[in-house]
Amino acid sequence: MRYQLYYWPHIQGRGEYVRLALEEAGAAYTDVARSGDGTSAMMKMMEAAKGMPPFAPPFLKAGNLVIGHTANILLYLGSRHGLAPKAEAGKLLLHQLQLTITDFVLEVHDTHHPLGPSLYYEDQKAAARKRTEEFWKSRVPKYLDYFEDLLAANGGAYVTGRRLTYVDLSLFQIVEGLRYAFPKRMKAFEKGIPGLVDLHDRVAARPNIKAYLASERRIAFNEEGIFRRYKALDG
Amino acid sequence: MRYQLYYWPHIQGRGEYVRLALEEAGAAYTDVARSGDGTSAMMKMMEAAKGMPPFAPPFLKAGNLVIGHTANILLYLGSRHGLAPKAEAGKLLLHQLQLTITDFVLEVHDTHHPLGPSLYYEDQKAAARKRTEEFWKSRVPKYLDYFEDLLAANGGAYVTGRRLTYVDLSLFQIVEGLRYAFPKRMKAFEKGIPGLVDLHDRVAARPNIKAYLASERRIAFNEEGIFRRYKALDG
Repeated sequence: MRYQLYYWPHIQGRGEYVRLALEEAGAAYTDVARSGDGTSAMMKMMEAAKGMPPFAPPFLKAGNLVIGHTANILLYLGSRHGLAPKAEAGKLLLHQLQLTITDFVLEVHDTHHPLGPSLYYEDQKAAARKRTEEFWKSRVPKYLDYFEDLLAANGGAYVTGRRLTYVDLSLFQIVEGLRYAFPKRMKAFEKGIPGLVDLHDRVAARPNIKAYLASERRIAFNEEGIFRRYKALDG
Repeated sequence: MRYQLYYWPHIQGRGEYVRLALEEAGAAYTDVARSGDGTSAMMKMMEAAKGMPPFAPPFLKAGNLVIGHTANILLYLGSRHGLAPKAEAGKLLLHQLQLTITDFVLEVHDTHHPLGPSLYYEDQKAAARKRTEEFWKSRVPKYLDYFEDLLAANGGAYVTGRRLTYVDLSLFQIVEGLRYAFPKRMKAFEKGIPGLVDLHDRVAARPNIKAYLASERRIAFNEEGIFRRYKALDG
């Protein structure tokens, strides 16, 4: 089965966690909005007046099923492609970690949009500076130290043990994104999370991920996505 | 099996969506932190150096399993207690709706904490006013109209059709919470979402929910939770 991924075509954003899982799995997929009139097809699906149109991208078409919300898509893909345990207990535990990452991603977004997602960054620069200070002072340590500790508690290879999961791929993206958006702050902070940095490097070196990152399928970071590089916010 | 729910003892917060599901299901559970040294037991579980301690409350102990994150707990409880479809496709679609509610709940929280969850409201009142304006101008309509439309598209009884699910219980709580936190704004807004208001009323009248709301198990809304009544934010 060939999957159809629907996501904004010019950003990594929340769709990137799904792209990384599909790429690592070697799954066949079309990144629909990146060609032809894919974006308008995506909008049409959200505007459907019947059934259960998804609230927002990303969503994944898998046969007749349309699955929305990043963590939910990964829940679906994980056990089908060897990126999650097959038993319910392990699936739920892993999903819980992905939902924690989901919360963190929203807090990353709030660093440049503390007054709301529908206003421009330029209209909330002062608030963004305050929120970013707080983010690096208390939120980044809280989240990343949690995952650093989990990694240590489970043997140091991957977050849940000896097998790579979609959560490890997502943590690669978190490290990559923080490095892009906050190069100075992240450089200093990284010294305290050697396990996550090592995990990042090992994920980046995996054949399928390495090939993906070097391909045109990997969209470059930019100032429309979740991780944005604004000098004023890098301390 | 008797469940143990771990959540902050003085607020409805994110734990309330789980409490409503347990109550509607008539499931046996202990709200651990609300008696004896339950709160310190909860903290100890989060500080465990082994395995997979949850990142934050709420979490649910079900036999040997500890499940964290509100939407994940509902995913687990739903099909076991007749509050979700049993087939995978239906479960995923319902979970997607709950994750959309999760996002909305975080945006509700951001109305009083736009500069970060670790600062006091009193230190971010001006930013809170701006964020709240934006919230009511664009976010509340976007989310609630989405659910109002879903309700209409699926027959008007419950969001996914003819059977009550945990998402309907959560939408009851959203209406209830917005009424508490923003009485003036919500009164005006409600005229545009008659289906959701009707759903709210029908949920409130269900025997188990009615008994729960009248009991001491239902914590009153207050200014420590997600929905807070601050006059300055009610327009």
